[in-house]
Amino acid sequence: MKLFHSPLSPFVRKVMVVAHELGLAEGLELLPSAAHPTKRDANILALHPLAQVPTLITDDGRALADSRVICEYLDALGGGAVFPRSGPARWLALTDQSTADGILDAALLTRYELTVRAEGERSSAWIAGQADKIESALDTFEAGVATLAERVDIGTITVACALGYLDLRLPDLAWRRRSPDLAAWFEDFDARPSMRATRPPAV
Amino acid sequence: MKLFHSPLSPFVRKVMVVAHELGLAEGLELLPSAAHPTKRDANILALHPLAQVPTLITDDGRALADSRVICEYLDALGGGAVFPRSGPARWLALTDQSTADGILDAALLTRYELTVRAEGERSSAWIAGQADKIESALDTFEAGVATLAERVDIGTITVACALGYLDLRLPDLAWRRRSPDLAAWFEDFDARPSMRATRPPAV
Repeated sequence: MKLFHSPLSPFVRKVMVVAHELGLAEGLELLPSAAHPTKRDANILALHPLAQVPTLITDDGRALADSRVICEYLDALGGGAVFPRSGPARWLALTDQSTADGILDAALLTRYELTVRAEGERSSAWIAGQADKIESALDTFEAGVATLAERVDIGTITVACALGYLDLRLPDLAWRRRSPDLAAWFEDFDARPSMRATRPPAV
Repeated sequence: MKLFHSPLSPFVRKVMVVAHELGLAEGLELLPSAAHPTKRDANILALHPLAQVPTLITDDGRALADSRVICEYLDALGGGAVFPRSGPARWLALTDQSTADGILDAALLTRYELTVRAEGERSSAWIAGQADKIESALDTFEAGVATLAERVDIGTITVACALGYLDLRLPDLAWRRRSPDLAAWFEDFDARPSMRATRPPAV
């Protein structure tokens, strides 16, 4: 299998953490990419119309995007339980994933606002709206931190990747000050080998 | 069950089409919403931190977002096959969903650019990048239109909702001219009772 990869993408990191948890990381050939929200990577585009990372090329030549689909595919391939099969555990994992993906979407839109646009094209109302979403989601995870304990599934993996991305790209948000119990949970989870192996390089 | 609803949201439409296909639409109480990308709806926010539509409140009081999670939840509840359980049919359905969701994300970002921002804050490069994504995805579905035939699953439902949304919000894109075989497929699919029952009101 081949994975279009970028060491700073939090959605790529989700896939890589799942691969490490399942023992599949060694079998992934990582392809460098120049994914960008408006200037598209022609190598990815030749295989998938969204031209984004992560995009997985399976051994039978199919192109899978996005991180949710790829993570579930790897879990099925590895016979794992990163996606609980059914019932309340599944809805909890999927809901935590979608909320944490919401943090990531908001953080990425904030970053694009500040790096992809000319200065005159930036909207402070847009940036404030994204920050609001991130803070509401942090508050929800802080209040429900007990439900994260003892779980290694797509929900907790995505929460951890989202918090790691806030550290990387929005350090001024100082999320640990707002969310001390979540910070304590993260400190443990972040010590897992899968998280250590996928840490983004310093920027 | 209660669903925070907006008659013009394509992600709400996905949920409603799935509910109609499963015979669950009658059991959904629709709650009006004022979801907006930056001005948040306090009623939804009280129950889910992303404060977006669709958000489902289950009978046991859980709040589920987003459309992918809600559609899969309804399918499990209704004992349906909107999400094929495993194997190639599942990956095909999920991949088509993520590509068609990509069309919707790009279309919504285009719309936000034109309606949420002051005129001086708009980026023509951003809008062009979103249009590129939409056109690449249309080309992929046009080339692979044979794979859509005879399927009623989360992939084909999402493709149909995406095409309906292009008609509603980006008619100047004239997607049928670019994608005549896809247009023929859509004409049939769009005649399904689930699609007819969820048609957006004229704007």
